[in-house]
Amino acid sequence: MTSDLILCRDDLDFVLFDWLQVESLAHRPRFSGQDRFDYASVLDVYASLATDFFAPHNKKNDCYEPEFDGERVTINPEVAVALRAFADAGLVSAAFPAQWNGMSLPGTVERAGMAYLLAANPGTAGYAFLTIANANLLIAHGERDRVSHYVEEMSEGRCFGTMCLSEPQAGSSLADIRTRAVPTGDGRYRLFGNKMWISGGDHEISDNIVHLVLAKIPDENGQIPSGVQGISLFTVPRKLIGADGQPGERNDVVLVGINHKMGYRGTVNCVLNFGEGRFRPNGEAGALGEIVGEPGKGLAYMFQMMNEARISVGLGAAALGYTGYLHALDYAKTRLQGRPRGERDPTAPQVPIIRHADVRRMLLAQKAYASGALALCLYAARLSDDIHSLENAPARDEAQCLLDLLTPVVKSWSSQWGLVANDLAIQVHGGYGYTREYNVEQFYRDNRLNPIHEGTFGVQALDLLGRKTRMSGGAAMDELNRRIASTVARARETASLGHHASTLECAWERIRIVTDELHRLDDTELQLANAAAYLEAFGHVVVGWLWLDQAIAANTLANGPRASDFHRGKLAACDYFFGWEMPKLTAWLAVLTPVETTALTMQEQWF
Amino acid sequence: MTSDLILCRDDLDFVLFDWLQVESLAHRPRFSGQDRFDYASVLDVYASLATDFFAPHNKKNDCYEPEFDGERVTINPEVAVALRAFADAGLVSAAFPAQWNGMSLPGTVERAGMAYLLAANPGTAGYAFLTIANANLLIAHGERDRVSHYVEEMSEGRCFGTMCLSEPQAGSSLADIRTRAVPTGDGRYRLFGNKMWISGGDHEISDNIVHLVLAKIPDENGQIPSGVQGISLFTVPRKLIGADGQPGERNDVVLVGINHKMGYRGTVNCVLNFGEGRFRPNGEAGALGEIVGEPGKGLAYMFQMMNEARISVGLGAAALGYTGYLHALDYAKTRLQGRPRGERDPTAPQVPIIRHADVRRMLLAQKAYASGALALCLYAARLSDDIHSLENAPARDEAQCLLDLLTPVVKSWSSQWGLVANDLAIQVHGGYGYTREYNVEQFYRDNRLNPIHEGTFGVQALDLLGRKTRMSGGAAMDELNRRIASTVARARETASLGHHASTLECAWERIRIVTDELHRLDDTELQLANAAAYLEAFGHVVVGWLWLDQAIAANTLANGPRASDFHRGKLAACDYFFGWEMPKLTAWLAVLTPVETTALTMQEQWF
Repeated sequence: MTSDLILCRDDLDFVLFDWLQVESLAHRPRFSGQDRFDYASVLDVYASLATDFFAPHNKKNDCYEPEFDGERVTINPEVAVALRAFADAGLVSAAFPAQWNGMSLPGTVERAGMAYLLAANPGTAGYAFLTIANANLLIAHGERDRVSHYVEEMSEGRCFGTMCLSEPQAGSSLADIRTRAVPTGDGRYRLFGNKMWISGGDHEISDNIVHLVLAKIPDENGQIPSGVQGISLFTVPRKLIGADGQPGERNDVVLVGINHKMGYRGTVNCVLNFGEGRFRPNGEAGALGEIVGEPGKGLAYMFQMMNEARISVGLGAAALGYTGYLHALDYAKTRLQGRPRGERDPTAPQVPIIRHADVRRMLLAQKAYASGALALCLYAARLSDDIHSLENAPARDEAQCLLDLLTPVVKSWSSQWGLVANDLAIQVHGGYGYTREYNVEQFYRDNRLNPIHEGTFGVQALDLLGRKTRMSGGAAMDELNRRIASTVARARETASLGHHASTLECAWERIRIVTDELHRLDDTELQLANAAAYLEAFGHVVVGWLWLDQAIAANTLANGPRASDFHRGKLAACDYFFGWEMPKLTAWLAVLTPVETTALTMQEQWF
Repeated sequence: MTSDLILCRDDLDFVLFDWLQVESLAHRPRFSGQDRFDYASVLDVYASLATDFFAPHNKKNDCYEPEFDGERVTINPEVAVALRAFADAGLVSAAFPAQWNGMSLPGTVERAGMAYLLAANPGTAGYAFLTIANANLLIAHGERDRVSHYVEEMSEGRCFGTMCLSEPQAGSSLADIRTRAVPTGDGRYRLFGNKMWISGGDHEISDNIVHLVLAKIPDENGQIPSGVQGISLFTVPRKLIGADGQPGERNDVVLVGINHKMGYRGTVNCVLNFGEGRFRPNGEAGALGEIVGEPGKGLAYMFQMMNEARISVGLGAAALGYTGYLHALDYAKTRLQGRPRGERDPTAPQVPIIRHADVRRMLLAQKAYASGALALCLYAARLSDDIHSLENAPARDEAQCLLDLLTPVVKSWSSQWGLVANDLAIQVHGGYGYTREYNVEQFYRDNRLNPIHEGTFGVQALDLLGRKTRMSGGAAMDELNRRIASTVARARETASLGHHASTLECAWERIRIVTDELHRLDDTELQLANAAAYLEAFGHVVVGWLWLDQAIAANTLANGPRASDFHRGKLAACDYFFGWEMPKLTAWLAVLTPVETTALTMQEQWF
């Protein structure tokens, strides 16, 4: 597969350089000395890795899943080769700060590059993402000397990372975890419990694995505290680090089963038992681990990784939507079927299906969803770069609260509409689209995981309406309001965008009104009953805003010396979004003002 | 799996007896002597077959697809066992008229029964559906003495049927088929060509297979006529019928490849070559076949089977949506996660997830889609029964034109929203939903075929807007108008339904206006550019109408001695549809009045 079926480099360049102005980051100390050439070169590396090492075994990952024989997990050897190439290129630590031997790449550029890998082979890319996010958490919250071994090993691809949150009885409800961490007396802990849905949980691709595990420390009576308060975070390696600094003895963490999913099949996903006693480090049962940061703050630390993972889920969904779109576009240009409307001569040659308006409609929709989601994810990454690099504290805080507000949108909007894009990619292919001889049906299956893992759509909706829109007295909403108003004002300066500016202004005003109305309700059950519809509406307005903001940049270029078909396409995608997508707002708002109560009052026995 | 996870019998009984009044059919000669007990008994048989013979190997069909070793197709043996049981129960000919040894069951009851099989195992049920539709076509258009062998053999399950339309270069564009049928001089034909996507195209489950094949008869110069006019229809058996009346010598039809699909994996789906000369019946290459009806009318005949198949596709999509809903409901009642909003005690027990409003919203949506689609399909079947049994010719014509109008809606609405229901069934299951240890991910993959095969969504949209709404001077629209007006008037007599009645009346009026506006456009390219949005809007209004019509019946029962939770659930599903679904109309109509032209004017090079 060529890289132009994986992602559209023109779009990445536009988003990064023309729209998000990442070059300007180089004026800040964290990124000093960098330039556009550096960023372009590193994107080339990601594109090459995606093309040469990731894409070629994507279908193989799907057909031949990881297998567990009771002792060892077997994974297609191409996975290790690809990840070795990734680590050898220095890309695990691409965005790590210099003091951790990273190249301090802006996260915006790193994520743009990672999108290539996620589009080319999400199963293999998953190991890299988890490892980077794990290391980022340790860099932020671990004590340097205690975690530097892991971060260094991860940087060099010898150790991979996981995140261990869920348990069979505690999925969305993390307060109910039962894994316990018992102090050993030497500053360490022994962990006992079962963890579910652990991606990359066991394998031998890397010399070692470091699990980040949520567990509760029993109180003086040996009781597990209830609720979220008692949750702490621990590093638990698969193999203990010996005196020689090398991984040696097996820790008491064992794989008990592999989950078989409809997608992301290249990523081994496991049930792990901690402390069942199969291995007895230092002669005793219990998985040896060390605490990260302070006791009782585990969930707060883990949420850094979780929020990063949520952006990654959004990015993966956008990337899958995008590669599906590019495949559908390629097919539509080459598949001959039917004739132009009005052609009465049955001997006239058939035309490529892209000549049919409905096929173009499906392609435009995919472009609007996939490219829109990609822009959304990279906008979020740009906020993250601001948080880490702005000198001005209030400006940092503004970026932080806006990122907090947008995180549930990035996660859920990209997942939802990226999947719709993949659905349309199948539809463009007709019957061929659902055969496994083509690629698009795998993209669709892979993408179906994204609206669930790392927090379901419903969980994101509660987070947005119940928490993020209210936090700090609505500071995030105010910041978003300022940015949307700025876009509206700038769009009004361009005649061709004036109508969209008014549509956006009005849509956002409706969101603000409904937000206030919902917040004023005394009954939180009623307030949050239709939160999913709120998230739908909110997400569409946010993405409409970013489309209009991109259109301003595209319009300037389309009227300048660099004018190109690409810029006209950007503007058309924006038109499509405002013409076809923004009207959906009415339907979602219809169940919010006033709150439609059919679901709320529905009785279990009536179903 | 118990039958109550396959389909909801209460709902079938309500739809058939309380709403569609199928008992009243027994007053007509075709169904004379039948009664409700007969219908209930035959539904019991379908339910038992589904539970005992179809459901148990549904997952096996998915995991172990048909295999072709170059000589023979191997299919899980349970498929043949199930189909033998089906034929032995007399169900192939259940709805055949008495003169063909059928039991003259109303199609409405037959399809209700078949829904069990489609929900339990669409891969295995596919063979039965194709065989019945094939026989129905032969009964309608074949000369009795020439096709009676096939119909009789199919009735008894010894011969299965297929439909062979598509070719690699001719999918949606049937005018471009190249298969040719050369007269042999003895009244028969020899066929040469390649056919694609042939479900049940080759296997040894039955003694024989009869293919219904579209092909063109060369003119006197040996040229294949262009366009659809020259298309004729042929019966081509896999094995020729010997002098003893038994299938004997192999005909010149061979399987050249099996398609590997993401769903319906139990149905072998093939590329077939006709006349490649591997078998040489009577010493010559060319697949021997006989013409059905008159030359040049093949497409018209085939459209009878195609229209029947389109209803079946809708029914299959509804059935899959329904069984997914029942699985999600079962899971939601038993899976414990989280606590009621406002519960502050973290030691309080977790509650079943059905207690969360958002989960009930997802279940209600599934109920509204799946049960709504099932009602739509059975309504269409009831029209078909009217066509075959009404004495009054104008009334028959009204039923026929309404069925013609609704067929694209039945096919596409059920496919689209049945799939959405399956998506929500996964969502309710959380991470478990996308693992292959649960059933719902297979339902989703199976259902993804339905918006494509037997005519894509786009093809249905063109059929509805470009043809069906205009035919006979808008007679079908007038008939639909009368029926909707009748429902609105009756709903107004019930206070609790009055608001929905007004909503429906207004929605239908908007459809009528937009239909007229589009028909008045001179530019057919513009008129049909956004036909997909028209089909979306039209479909939702039709299903809203049927929900309101059902609600009238449910409301009467809910206020009578037979009042039950089921009736309250019906009314709640109707409320959900009007509260959450009907507002979507605005978004679809927004791109129709005036026609939004972004997709129409989008240039290929801008993508």
